[in-house]
Amino acid sequence: MYRSHHCGELNASHIGEKVKLSGWVQRSRILSGMTFIDLRDRYGITQLAFNDGWDADLQEKARKVGREFVIAIEGEVLERESKNPNMATGEIEIKVNNLEILNAAKTPPFTIENDTDGGEELRMKYRYLDLRRNPLQASIKLRHKVAQAVRSFLNDADFLEIETPYLIKSTPEGARDFVVPSRMNQGQFYALPQSPQTFKQLLMVSGYDRYYQIVRCFRDEDLRADRQPEFTQIDCEMAFVEQEDILQQFEGLIKSLLKEVKGVDIDSVPRMTYAEAMERYGNDKPDIRFGMELKNLNDLAKDKGFVVFDQAEVVLGISVPGASGYSRKQLDALTKWVQRPQIGMQGLIYSKYNEDGTYKSSVDKFFNEEAQAEWHKAAGSEAGDLLLILAGSENKTRKAMSELRLYMGEELGLRNPDEYAPLWVLDFPLLEWDEESGRYHAMHHPFTSPKPEDIALLDTDPGKVRANAYDMVLNGNEIGGGSIRIHDRKVQSRMFEMLGFSDEEAKAQFGFLMDAFEYGAPPHGGIAFGFDRLVALLGGSETIRDFIAFPKNNAGRDLMINSPAPIDTLQLTELGIDLRPQID
Amino acid sequence: MYRSHHCGELNASHIGEKVKLSGWVQRSRILSGMTFIDLRDRYGITQLAFNDGWDADLQEKARKVGREFVIAIEGEVLERESKNPNMATGEIEIKVNNLEILNAAKTPPFTIENDTDGGEELRMKYRYLDLRRNPLQASIKLRHKVAQAVRSFLNDADFLEIETPYLIKSTPEGARDFVVPSRMNQGQFYALPQSPQTFKQLLMVSGYDRYYQIVRCFRDEDLRADRQPEFTQIDCEMAFVEQEDILQQFEGLIKSLLKEVKGVDIDSVPRMTYAEAMERYGNDKPDIRFGMELKNLNDLAKDKGFVVFDQAEVVLGISVPGASGYSRKQLDALTKWVQRPQIGMQGLIYSKYNEDGTYKSSVDKFFNEEAQAEWHKAAGSEAGDLLLILAGSENKTRKAMSELRLYMGEELGLRNPDEYAPLWVLDFPLLEWDEESGRYHAMHHPFTSPKPEDIALLDTDPGKVRANAYDMVLNGNEIGGGSIRIHDRKVQSRMFEMLGFSDEEAKAQFGFLMDAFEYGAPPHGGIAFGFDRLVALLGGSETIRDFIAFPKNNAGRDLMINSPAPIDTLQLTELGIDLRPQID
Repeated sequence: MYRSHHCGELNASHIGEKVKLSGWVQRSRILSGMTFIDLRDRYGITQLAFNDGWDADLQEKARKVGREFVIAIEGEVLERESKNPNMATGEIEIKVNNLEILNAAKTPPFTIENDTDGGEELRMKYRYLDLRRNPLQASIKLRHKVAQAVRSFLNDADFLEIETPYLIKSTPEGARDFVVPSRMNQGQFYALPQSPQTFKQLLMVSGYDRYYQIVRCFRDEDLRADRQPEFTQIDCEMAFVEQEDILQQFEGLIKSLLKEVKGVDIDSVPRMTYAEAMERYGNDKPDIRFGMELKNLNDLAKDKGFVVFDQAEVVLGISVPGASGYSRKQLDALTKWVQRPQIGMQGLIYSKYNEDGTYKSSVDKFFNEEAQAEWHKAAGSEAGDLLLILAGSENKTRKAMSELRLYMGEELGLRNPDEYAPLWVLDFPLLEWDEESGRYHAMHHPFTSPKPEDIALLDTDPGKVRANAYDMVLNGNEIGGGSIRIHDRKVQSRMFEMLGFSDEEAKAQFGFLMDAFEYGAPPHGGIAFGFDRLVALLGGSETIRDFIAFPKNNAGRDLMINSPAPIDTLQLTELGIDLRPQID
Repeated sequence: MYRSHHCGELNASHIGEKVKLSGWVQRSRILSGMTFIDLRDRYGITQLAFNDGWDADLQEKARKVGREFVIAIEGEVLERESKNPNMATGEIEIKVNNLEILNAAKTPPFTIENDTDGGEELRMKYRYLDLRRNPLQASIKLRHKVAQAVRSFLNDADFLEIETPYLIKSTPEGARDFVVPSRMNQGQFYALPQSPQTFKQLLMVSGYDRYYQIVRCFRDEDLRADRQPEFTQIDCEMAFVEQEDILQQFEGLIKSLLKEVKGVDIDSVPRMTYAEAMERYGNDKPDIRFGMELKNLNDLAKDKGFVVFDQAEVVLGISVPGASGYSRKQLDALTKWVQRPQIGMQGLIYSKYNEDGTYKSSVDKFFNEEAQAEWHKAAGSEAGDLLLILAGSENKTRKAMSELRLYMGEELGLRNPDEYAPLWVLDFPLLEWDEESGRYHAMHHPFTSPKPEDIALLDTDPGKVRANAYDMVLNGNEIGGGSIRIHDRKVQSRMFEMLGFSDEEAKAQFGFLMDAFEYGAPPHGGIAFGFDRLVALLGGSETIRDFIAFPKNNAGRDLMINSPAPIDTLQLTELGIDLRPQID
């Protein structure tokens, strides 16, 4: 037996007890001739004390024990002289009478402290050491807690956890698949699932009624910052439901998570259509923790002789609260910010609604105070606010203004990570036009049902068709998305046709699903939440990598195990594949 | 809203209520001019009633509705005239006043009943229909229940659920890996994990103390009956433990599962060494629900002038209770059974200990009744028992006798699927000699620690070294296995050396783990349970395929989605691989 207690549980009630503890040496120090070691495990830290008067040899041994050594000790719980009220074990220390070194430790390549001196790459190589640090321990424990809370909620709501296969089939729609060559069927490949979409729909056809799974998904995409080739999804599906049933069910889930994990009470989750989100925030995942909504100033700003506005498709403003005192330097910096290539605007126009009731703008030549007053009124300004204005083509300007709004929210500290503002965004377009391929793509996926009242538009104006699709947004992040599915073979065929599938392609890829729709498919719909992102947000962070035990870097590599890696020629032969010669 | 209630919940207390139900038509029948439909969903079946007197058009409509149609109805709960006490809803029926066909259904290719007329292949192609049948619904629900019970037990015991990566690195040790070509790192491959072994060990090095995961694993092996290329494991690891800690922890798990899922109380799980299991049962996963233990009869049977025994390395007997009345025909059949190629014995010898106290054997010429009495005494027979004897080389004969024992247990109905007899088998050999490769293989895996007292044997007689390894056996099936791991770099290096790894190979493959052992690795160990098998056994079956929602066939194919399948040339190009020409 290596221990009688953990390092986080001993307190005054244990004084006088003989105990055995095991753990890592967090640090040691010598004080007035005594040696103290902080012994650490997952549960906490306990102070060990060594004294020449008790056992000189033992103290000698204790002094040789370095950071991150793994030791086991026996001793007696003593009341501590200088108590530490900030520690669970701060009332006691252990008078050690036996110390065993279970494993020595080399000096770690970076310090195992809350703030470490290790660079990103080094910490990924020694991930098992980085994972010892408190912030990562907290992340991994939070992830565990959220997973259990999700399951508990869904189990209580009669959902069944059902596993779906990982070795499935590659499909041309959507992102790129990871594929797995088959040895028993040479020349053929499995694919790893981007989501269990068709399987969960089939489970509804099979009558399982309510399904969920916390499941790994895979996408072979060029990795943007903080995207992972494998990621985890809370995947759910329900039969005999309309959109409203799903919204209510999963509004319940997010409320329960926020309550259980963060102690936050949410009354209800507000709803907004996609069109409204784009209009008010320039964004289909608005952060509604703060205002600064986008106002269309076309009527008030165009045709007044200022060519920039006159030539613009749209003039948009946001009113930044309490920022009328911004200096020239600050305003110049903002102008530079919107001129960066990622934003790509020509310039930024401002108008200050000063505390004294006067107005001052960068376009005073064209617009007098009265005109500016009208803008401010339209944007809902109060005295002391700063109106920021962008003008240009509709899409680009709206997007830029959304970015600027988020940036200003950040600058003014309005994006409080301890505040949680979930939101449903509804009525997404069914299709979006893809310039590159010259055809429509499914905005959500090809199984999403059009709104019944919009079906006629499929023939006349497909881009206008709204879907029974919804996203859950949390603090400006899309954390979940889903839809009511098509459950009628004819509608599904029509949908594949819209997406440019030939009849043969549709049958070869999704024939099993369309067949299933002919054997008694119930109306059904579902949702999937990005589990990594959700946990990160609940942990007050937007960096998912810190909430995954063994993440990959931006090149899709695991630096710790050095993967991917070449494989044996024998393996290639068995799989019936050859590597193409590399071109340098 | 598609329903106010499920099809399993209405009873006498609802009489008079207006309800709305949705589901599948299980069957319909016409009785004294009325139409009755059994409406089915996941929760049960409710009887719908239609009557010309109520609504002639509606009854007409109801008569057109076929099996497996999906319908929604509104109606009133009536007391049923002829109640069915075997059904939860047997007291009531619904007087329907509105019927909507949500989706029609073609005639299913096989009947959706407890016993179906569909063949294996057809049912796999239409798995979504097979999954509607009660036995499969029960399997999938049981699987859900077991998963939740496992998590609940482990959560209560302070285990953390931690996800490990699916895209890892191929290793030469053990079974064949499935590999995943990398597009971003052309010419390199990920591998899918056969188990999260090294990651869970690293989590112990990272201080997570107690880890678990219900996790998918992958093995590209030629599929024997009832093996799947992807399977699910309950994967666990603990730090600062000795073997005894693990045995107690997971004895607790199996007891808790048997109690919660089957209502079975197990006092404690008996233990047996590998050597003892081989001696008494000829098998390292003995079914201890019945006796018939193997008895070595060498002393009593050899050197008595019967050449078959005299030339045999070993003479083994089992005493079959109450079988002395076996006919010549039955005994001939048994002889044929042991002569099948899978068993491969030359013949079978028997001796009957008749109810009247006489003895009769197939070798009466060589052994008189007195000699036979001695055999029976050694084998623990009572009057009325039948002694079955096999003779030959040690390994083959022991294996054959084990098979014969299981067969006789089955024949005599001693392997009761409702009885649960878990068992720990301990002290497995560390290494086993592989004739083919001419070297030792790790019996469990290369990370298993040798028993400290046997380490010296590594140099002199490696085959004799026992491991700190243990299996949990349930009713003759290995359901879990694990070990105390090596946590010392030097011992791990020595182990790789024993297994024929060069220093470079060991470092290239497992350098990260050996490095980790130098930065403060705690003693640790763990276990993994085969979840598919465990659920099947708890479901009273040994066929795992019925407990997996979407299994693959013996050729590793998913017949429903028709996978694996060829992929686009573009995909191959992007991955930098070519298919080798197929040779017909």
